[in-house]
Amino acid sequence: MIDYEWIFNNYYLRMKDWHKLAQEYDRDDVLGSYRKSFRINNERLIYFDGNSLGMPVERSLEVLTETASVGWGERLIKGWNDSWWDMPERVAGKIARVIGAGGDEVIVCDSTSVNLYKLVNAALKARKGRKKIVSDDLNFPSDLYVVQGVAENMGEGHELVLVPGDEMITVPFSKLEKEIDQDTALVVLTHVSFRSAFMYDMARVTELAHSYGALVIWDLCHAAGAVEVRLNECNADMAVGCTYKYLNGGPGSPAFLYVRKDLQEELFSPVWGWVGEKDPFGFRPGYIRSEGIRHFMVGSPGILSMCTLEPSVDMIIEAGIGRIREKSLALSGFLLSMFRDVLEPLGFVPGSPDDPEERGSHISLRHPEGYRICKALIDEQVGECQVIPDFRPPDNIRIGLAPLYNTFGEVYRAVTEMARIVKDHVYDKYDPGREGVT
Amino acid sequence: MIDYEWIFNNYYLRMKDWHKLAQEYDRDDVLGSYRKSFRINNERLIYFDGNSLGMPVERSLEVLTETASVGWGERLIKGWNDSWWDMPERVAGKIARVIGAGGDEVIVCDSTSVNLYKLVNAALKARKGRKKIVSDDLNFPSDLYVVQGVAENMGEGHELVLVPGDEMITVPFSKLEKEIDQDTALVVLTHVSFRSAFMYDMARVTELAHSYGALVIWDLCHAAGAVEVRLNECNADMAVGCTYKYLNGGPGSPAFLYVRKDLQEELFSPVWGWVGEKDPFGFRPGYIRSEGIRHFMVGSPGILSMCTLEPSVDMIIEAGIGRIREKSLALSGFLLSMFRDVLEPLGFVPGSPDDPEERGSHISLRHPEGYRICKALIDEQVGECQVIPDFRPPDNIRIGLAPLYNTFGEVYRAVTEMARIVKDHVYDKYDPGREGVT
Repeated sequence: MIDYEWIFNNYYLRMKDWHKLAQEYDRDDVLGSYRKSFRINNERLIYFDGNSLGMPVERSLEVLTETASVGWGERLIKGWNDSWWDMPERVAGKIARVIGAGGDEVIVCDSTSVNLYKLVNAALKARKGRKKIVSDDLNFPSDLYVVQGVAENMGEGHELVLVPGDEMITVPFSKLEKEIDQDTALVVLTHVSFRSAFMYDMARVTELAHSYGALVIWDLCHAAGAVEVRLNECNADMAVGCTYKYLNGGPGSPAFLYVRKDLQEELFSPVWGWVGEKDPFGFRPGYIRSEGIRHFMVGSPGILSMCTLEPSVDMIIEAGIGRIREKSLALSGFLLSMFRDVLEPLGFVPGSPDDPEERGSHISLRHPEGYRICKALIDEQVGECQVIPDFRPPDNIRIGLAPLYNTFGEVYRAVTEMARIVKDHVYDKYDPGREGVT
Repeated sequence: MIDYEWIFNNYYLRMKDWHKLAQEYDRDDVLGSYRKSFRINNERLIYFDGNSLGMPVERSLEVLTETASVGWGERLIKGWNDSWWDMPERVAGKIARVIGAGGDEVIVCDSTSVNLYKLVNAALKARKGRKKIVSDDLNFPSDLYVVQGVAENMGEGHELVLVPGDEMITVPFSKLEKEIDQDTALVVLTHVSFRSAFMYDMARVTELAHSYGALVIWDLCHAAGAVEVRLNECNADMAVGCTYKYLNGGPGSPAFLYVRKDLQEELFSPVWGWVGEKDPFGFRPGYIRSEGIRHFMVGSPGILSMCTLEPSVDMIIEAGIGRIREKSLALSGFLLSMFRDVLEPLGFVPGSPDDPEERGSHISLRHPEGYRICKALIDEQVGECQVIPDFRPPDNIRIGLAPLYNTFGEVYRAVTEMARIVKDHVYDKYDPGREGVT
């Protein structure tokens, strides 16, 4: 892999012609042609929030219209026989290719939290007697809520231990080593942290947990579609993830769930849904679980929220997750180099790990006025461009870099704009209150 | 209310001019104008499966396009601030008006099965120590699966007792009286049975359960939007229901959940989701439940699958659930009268209760060749019209009557076609195998 960081630090950082560099990189970008497959309405808008809600692929919007007008409108109930009933498995089979899993190990259903609930419950039952659940304090609060809820509901005295991160940015492996032990039933971690983009070494952590007989659940929300996830290669047990970030499924598109093939029979979902039953159209009482990953499905899949997902995943497969990751590192390398030159002198502090191997596809920039700077960036009335990052307390401006539609030119313009907002105190006029920023 | 049954039986049944009667009724139908608000592509198609998947309202398809193109495509992440975040509460407030509940007692989220899971779990915790769960064998197997799963997972020796229905059609109150007792934690019933359309007296059953201190959960899947559900008037505790049947939300649109105001604090969902947390954007560990009904939400709502629901619910409110029910009874009265005259002599047997007060909005017609008759009705190549009912084993052809778009003329044509299929043995050419019928 090209060492972009080295190039930037040793050559361009001295040169400082960031605009020219951005143009060169965009010109040479092998994934550059994918941008036009997205619905881009407005070239003034720089969208760096694809790690929250990905932009729509044009084909997704077409498929949605076809599914609604022809599928629902004309085929009506027969739509289920046409292509809807198998959609969760079909789309999951494609997501599996993006996260390094087998097609029969992934299913699309429910929300990330509901899927995590099922797996945490199943895992604690499978490791009955062990009392410890290990996570970290960089994890999504949402995931911690689910774990707390399962533990509370089960009432067997499980203890959730949160390994503390360093500066809210990384979690050293040595800290995990101290907590994972013979009493650990389950390790629940987010592969790429939502705040700092810190990325765990999945293989190493999995091996550590397995050495004590513990199971591991990975949350892939900020990883799927952005970094090379290799579930099978890492011998990962279970995973969940949403599809509306780098997978561009649309607002609230359904989540996915992975269970390694040889664990599927051992783990039992607590939510016995008819779609996960062996014979859903037999209409018999007395639940018999479906074989394989389908068992983890529950109710009727939300077709309109799912059909938009397939064209985007197809595109990711075509582009290649390896090339996507390579461009992601190039974009973030460029951003960080420009950051050191232009933003650090203005009081910004890095909020993401330095090492690209430890980082997902967004960059957190911290600033005491982060919240108001974020507001100024989003305000359409200010500046040459409108920049949409997002803000995560206490002071993180998150720049989500989506390699299939973001460009080096956008990074250049956004950083320049951010510098202007701070230099000229443009942010002064915004309310320091906390509501209303995405 | 006009006694349609009496009129049919005492006057028109002797007259037997069904075609003329259908024309008169359609001409006088006060809800007749709503049909044109639906996407009707093909007047040859008679759609009697609105109890499985309702037809799309034109406005729903428009809203879907706007939500995808403008909301997702242009507003991007800001769509959540515009109108998405509050959508589950806003739409639920409207559904509440259709099912006789307060606006702060209903929420739209997840699937029926996931919602039922949450409530069964919460109810059993709230009645800890009691071991009995009462349902009936007319209930959706899907609901029974969920109950079995919760009981199994809880591991406290709960016993699920299924009150046997009479002829798979009705459940006499006296049979419930025998089973509900001091040890009953929970009664889980479907208000309108999916097979026979048998409808419980909600007030009476609720009173019975409450007299023993038991809680009741009602499944409203086949009731909401079709019959006058009066949750508050009946002092109902909890309810769940889907929105893709008579509420016309679209394939797999999200479900709803009702908890009576004064029970909301007492009941605790086992699935602690971030959307149901007190401060979802505070990103703090340590779950604090949201006040009120929002606590029962879990993950990000599926916006594209939900936005289609609102225009349809608006229309139902405008039409008035009382008038909808009145037309439903008129349609089913007409169908049953014609049935007695035309179909009963051909070997059909009624599969729904006689008493309209005990019946929802579909009519089951049973015939030993029901499955093949159903196939012939659906086959576009056969007959003057294509009729889409659905089939439920062992021998039920279900005719779903959706008062906002079905007409008396459609009932006339469908019954005439059914008679022809049996008289001429048209069904002979179809495979008696079980797959492929909706």
